Amino acid sequence: MKFEIQPIGIIHSPYLTKEECPVQGMAAPDGKGQVEVYPEFEEGLQDIGQFTHIILFYIFDRAGKVLLTRKPFLDDKPHGIFATRHPCRPNNLGMSIVKLEKRNKNILKVSGIDVLDKTPLIDIKPYVPKFDHRENAGNGWVQNSSFRKKPYNRE
Amino acid sequence: MKFEIQPIGIIHSPYLTKEECPVQGMAAPDGKGQVEVYPEFEEGLQDIGQFTHIILFYIFDRAGKVLLTRKPFLDDKPHGIFATRHPCRPNNLGMSIVKLEKRNKNILKVSGIDVLDKTPLIDIKPYVPKFDHRENAGNGWVQNSSFRKKPYNRE
Repeated sequence: MKFEIQPIGIIHSPYLTKEECPVQGMAAPDGKGQVEVYPEFEEGLQDIGQFTHIILFYIFDRAGKVLLTRKPFLDDKPHGIFATRHPCRPNNLGMSIVKLEKRNKNILKVSGIDVLDKTPLIDIKPYVPKFDHRENAGNGWVQNSSFRKKPYNRE
Repeated sequence: MKFEIQPIGIIHSPYLTKEECPVQGMAAPDGKGQVEVYPEFEEGLQDIGQFTHIILFYIFDRAGKVLLTRKPFLDDKPHGIFATRHPCRPNNLGMSIVKLEKRNKNILKVSGIDVLDKTPLIDIKPYVPKFDHRENAGNGWVQNSSFRKKPYNRE
């Protein structure tokens, strides 16, 4: 069984290389990006301006080799890929929660972006605290990590 | 440009029909499910048990017609599909945050499930409040909605 995914747009960001790209949006909340939704999907953006935050779904199209365990950027011990948010993962699916600053037709200006420039966008959903907040959730191995620069030469 | 997605597992849930399936996990936090990760990906689950909650990504494989504006289950006014979490959307990509109750090898027992039985799983990421909480986020049109039964005959 296979599914075919077609981009609905493209994400523009200031980050041209993996080294520049923040580990998470929360690590660089001021980073501005533009989400370009292809005109044929613009109608689907009706009322999106009611939300302060949106969730972008995209393909890590420049991801390296998929390994099932790997050292993530924020730790020097390896973890299973599904216990990390690392880009190199089966299906290369990425997700980022960003702040929606402004909509101009099919262009969404956002901040807190953490994706590479020209990343293919495959879906947008509204971020809805009533659905998405889990107050008592733990941070697992991330609890003792703080945002840091990506370790040199680590994919 | 197209991308090919291959399931990494399958989600088992008590919900055999769309009518039974909750609108959101938060609407039925006790609903139990089992996430079966195919054995060839089991290594990727190392350390997932450190997290209290995980995010499941899947394909809405029984979704109906894609419309760019649509009445969602929780409102009687139409909204753009990207301003809703409705299943019938370009690329049919679904996301659910669930509570991880127990791991037994390649099987994850979860609660708060809101997907149909036998839904194809395409990724798992840890839910990490340090990355995913947005304290001041608004709920947009969902603010004035409360969880209700799905309106009769509404896809």
